[in-house]
Amino acid sequence: MASFRQLWHWLQTATEDAEADAGAAVVEEVVVLPPRPTHPYYPEDVSIPGYAPNELPVPVLIAALGGMLGFALLGSSIVALRVNPALTRSSLAVFCWFMLCGCLHCFFEGYFVLNHATVASSQSLPAQLWKEYALSDSRYLTSDFFVLSVESITVLLWGPLCFLCALTTALPRSPLRHPLRIAACMAHLYGVALYYATSLCELYYAGRPHSRPEPLYFWGYYVGFNLPWVVVPLLVLADSFATVTSALRALDRVGGALDGFWSREGRPTTGGEEEPKKTR
Amino acid sequence: MASFRQLWHWLQTATEDAEADAGAAVVEEVVVLPPRPTHPYYPEDVSIPGYAPNELPVPVLIAALGGMLGFALLGSSIVALRVNPALTRSSLAVFCWFMLCGCLHCFFEGYFVLNHATVASSQSLPAQLWKEYALSDSRYLTSDFFVLSVESITVLLWGPLCFLCALTTALPRSPLRHPLRIAACMAHLYGVALYYATSLCELYYAGRPHSRPEPLYFWGYYVGFNLPWVVVPLLVLADSFATVTSALRALDRVGGALDGFWSREGRPTTGGEEEPKKTR
Repeated sequence: MASFRQLWHWLQTATEDAEADAGAAVVEEVVVLPPRPTHPYYPEDVSIPGYAPNELPVPVLIAALGGMLGFALLGSSIVALRVNPALTRSSLAVFCWFMLCGCLHCFFEGYFVLNHATVASSQSLPAQLWKEYALSDSRYLTSDFFVLSVESITVLLWGPLCFLCALTTALPRSPLRHPLRIAACMAHLYGVALYYATSLCELYYAGRPHSRPEPLYFWGYYVGFNLPWVVVPLLVLADSFATVTSALRALDRVGGALDGFWSREGRPTTGGEEEPKKTR
Repeated sequence: MASFRQLWHWLQTATEDAEADAGAAVVEEVVVLPPRPTHPYYPEDVSIPGYAPNELPVPVLIAALGGMLGFALLGSSIVALRVNPALTRSSLAVFCWFMLCGCLHCFFEGYFVLNHATVASSQSLPAQLWKEYALSDSRYLTSDFFVLSVESITVLLWGPLCFLCALTTALPRSPLRHPLRIAACMAHLYGVALYYATSLCELYYAGRPHSRPEPLYFWGYYVGFNLPWVVVPLLVLADSFATVTSALRALDRVGGALDGFWSREGRPTTGGEEEPKKTR
């Protein structure tokens, strides 16, 4: 019960307006408080050795990341449309989604996996972006074993898988497209589910939040920035399930019709092409 | 480097013969050692309040679990063969695999999720099985947040998904069979990868092993008991990928042939049945 009260109190704080914080800053000057932590991350007693505050303002960081990603997506879309001019709008959107995922996984998260021990003290662009994001999840600055494991697997496996999904989407008539999409979407959905679950589990059972309680960080960064990896994979998964089941059903019907035809007409002995693999 | 030496030392111990332990027990009586932990789990300083040693011997525990699972598989196989007498041997094997997974996820792991706080002190059959397994991974007795999260998701999502895979395997001509199998196999593969990665990450970076170093526990329980969830999903995944891509390719060929036919003969205006969903 105690842990539930703690969780409830923390969530209430997280949903309150940021106004309260402005008031608290004034009180702080009057009341004698214990020494302030040397960093802005939660839980306040977490150790982040060598932490150096960001030098660049947030809009500049976001514009830099957005600019690079936008450039990568635009460039790859132009190439994709040259390779396959018949690419529909929805296919182009799926292509862009998987290119975005591949770039984030291999480069942005790849930087984290290679430099997780020095991110807190670094002033490189990706390090500053990670420090800003870590306001909503300090595990990114403490080399948390779960975060390090999930990010390593994401960089090594899911990044290349996303690029493969983008490639098979751009190529005309690739039959690997849908099974690969199902695999990638499952990886994203499970990854996000575990990412949310481990953090909320620690908040519930140990009363230790990893996010600052301001709505911007909890709802904006922690929930909001990860939510697309729930919504989009669910949509793509539903589409791929529909396509694959529809194709298997259609093939079963064609097979049934041909069986009826061959039983009347006699099956040709030199068919040339091999039969497609049975679906059972 | 220090952590790498620790890891190397621990792995050497884990691969040595169990003979060394017998020798160590003799030495222990002569040399004055720090107080022994009140439990047999690693790391030795981990707190497991209320731990009560198992009352049943290991062969009895394993026989009990094996008996129950065998009974469930035999019963469900008989039902499956009544529902679909044309079920091939390989389909029956896949059916049994997913039934086994579903039972373990929903009942054995479900027990853990509901009782994780009291497993260490309980003498129920599943609790004793979990205490035996925890010799290879003490996180199951410490309500570790990652283990609790991964097990909760497994019980709530992957258990029912496995039963659905078994059902669609048993039913004749279910087109949902292969997409569902791809989803379940990805869940198993990612789950095991993270399970191994988080534990080995902590061993490498913090030098904290969760498994006793004897080969039986590390190689037998920790590696061996989880390895089937790498090998079988890889095989099933490869088969489902082959079937789905083969079906999509065959359908594309049929579609191309029909397009050629319709362009010569004129497409009928009252087709009756709707066309299958385009695969692009």
